[in-house]
Amino acid sequence: MRDAYHDSLDAITDELVSMSRLVATMMHRASVALLEADREKAEAVIESDVEIDSINQEVELAATELIALQQPVATDLRMVLASMRISTTLERMGDLAQHVAKTARMRYPDSAVPSNVAEQFREMATVADRMGAKMAEVLGSKDLELAREIEADDDRMDALHRQVLDILLSQEPGPVNQAVDVTLLNRYYERYADHVVSVARRVIYLVIGERSRT
Amino acid sequence: MRDAYHDSLDAITDELVSMSRLVATMMHRASVALLEADREKAEAVIESDVEIDSINQEVELAATELIALQQPVATDLRMVLASMRISTTLERMGDLAQHVAKTARMRYPDSAVPSNVAEQFREMATVADRMGAKMAEVLGSKDLELAREIEADDDRMDALHRQVLDILLSQEPGPVNQAVDVTLLNRYYERYADHVVSVARRVIYLVIGERSRT
Repeated sequence: MRDAYHDSLDAITDELVSMSRLVATMMHRASVALLEADREKAEAVIESDVEIDSINQEVELAATELIALQQPVATDLRMVLASMRISTTLERMGDLAQHVAKTARMRYPDSAVPSNVAEQFREMATVADRMGAKMAEVLGSKDLELAREIEADDDRMDALHRQVLDILLSQEPGPVNQAVDVTLLNRYYERYADHVVSVARRVIYLVIGERSRT
Repeated sequence: MRDAYHDSLDAITDELVSMSRLVATMMHRASVALLEADREKAEAVIESDVEIDSINQEVELAATELIALQQPVATDLRMVLASMRISTTLERMGDLAQHVAKTARMRYPDSAVPSNVAEQFREMATVADRMGAKMAEVLGSKDLELAREIEADDDRMDALHRQVLDILLSQEPGPVNQAVDVTLLNRYYERYADHVVSVARRVIYLVIGERSRT
C-alpha cells in the first residue's frame, strides 16, 4: 500500500513539475508579448490557459482519488493536500500570465509599457523568469537552498514594483489608459512573484516536516 | 464513525459561516472607510485580517485531522476538501477588504474615490455587501436558489467595473495617483465578487453531487 501511495504521489509531483514549467513558459511568452508587442506570443499564452486549467482539474481528481484509495495520514496526507494547493496556485499564476498577454494584445501594435518604465518591466520579466525556473526545479528536486533563494528574488520584484509606482506617481498627468495598464501590469508581476514564494514555502514546510519526523 | 464525521464537518461548516460573516463585515467596513474617508473603520479592517488568517489555519488543521481520523471517501471527502478551498477563498477575500481599507487609509483625510466614479463605487459596495450576505447564508443553509442569485449579482458587479473603467479612460488626464487608486479599487471589488461566485459554485456542485448520489 505504501508503494502504491508513493507511485501515485510521484505521478502528481510530475504533473506539478510540468504544470509549473508550462506556467513559467506562459509568463515568459507574455513578457515577450508585452515588451516586444508580439501579438502571436500573446495569443499563444491566452490559448494555453485552458491547458493549465485542465491539468489543475486532473491534479485535483488524482489527489482526491489518492486520499480516498490510500487513506494517507500525517505527513503523507499533508503532502497530497499541499499538492492540491500548489496546483491551485499554479492555476492562478497561469491566469496572471494570461492577463499580461491580454493587456499586450489589447494595445497591439503599440506596447502597453511606456518607455519611462520599460527598464523596470524588462527586469521584472527577468526576475519572473528566474523565479518560475527555480520554482519548477524546487518542485522536482525539493532543493531547500534554491527554495530559499526565491525569497531574495521576491524582494527584488517588490523593489521594482515600488519603483514603477514611484515613477508613475511622480510623472506629469498623461494618457489615462497608460496609467491603468501600468498599474495593473505592475500588480500582475508582483502577485506572480508572491505565488512563487507561496509554492516555495509549502515545499520548505513539507520537507522540513518530513525530516523532523524521521 | 459516520456521526463523528458529521459532527466534525458541522463544526467546520460553522467556522466557515462565521468566517464568511466576518469577511462580509470587513468588506462593508472597508467600503464605509473608503466612501466616507473613515480612518477608524479602515484601521479596524486592517486589524481583523489576522483573525481571518487564523480561522483559515484552524479550518485547514481541522479538515486535515478529519480526513486523517475519519478517512471519508466519495462525497464526504469532496465536502471536506471543498471546505478547505472555501476557507482559502475567504482568506483571499479578507485580503481584498484589507487592500480597500489600506487605500482608504493612505488617502485619508481625502477620499480615494473621485466624485466622477463615486456613484459606481457606492453601488459596487452595495453589491459586495449583498453578495457577502448571500454567501454566508448559502454556506449555512445550502440554499441553491440563493446560490444561483449570486451569478446575477456578479453580472451587475462586472457591469459596474466596466463603467468605472470607461469613465476613467474617457476622462482628461488628471492626478495619476487617482487613476492608480481607482484602477486597483475597481479590481479589488471585481475580484471580491468573483470569489463569492466561486464559493457559491462549490456549494452548488456539492449539493447537486450529494443529491445525485442518493
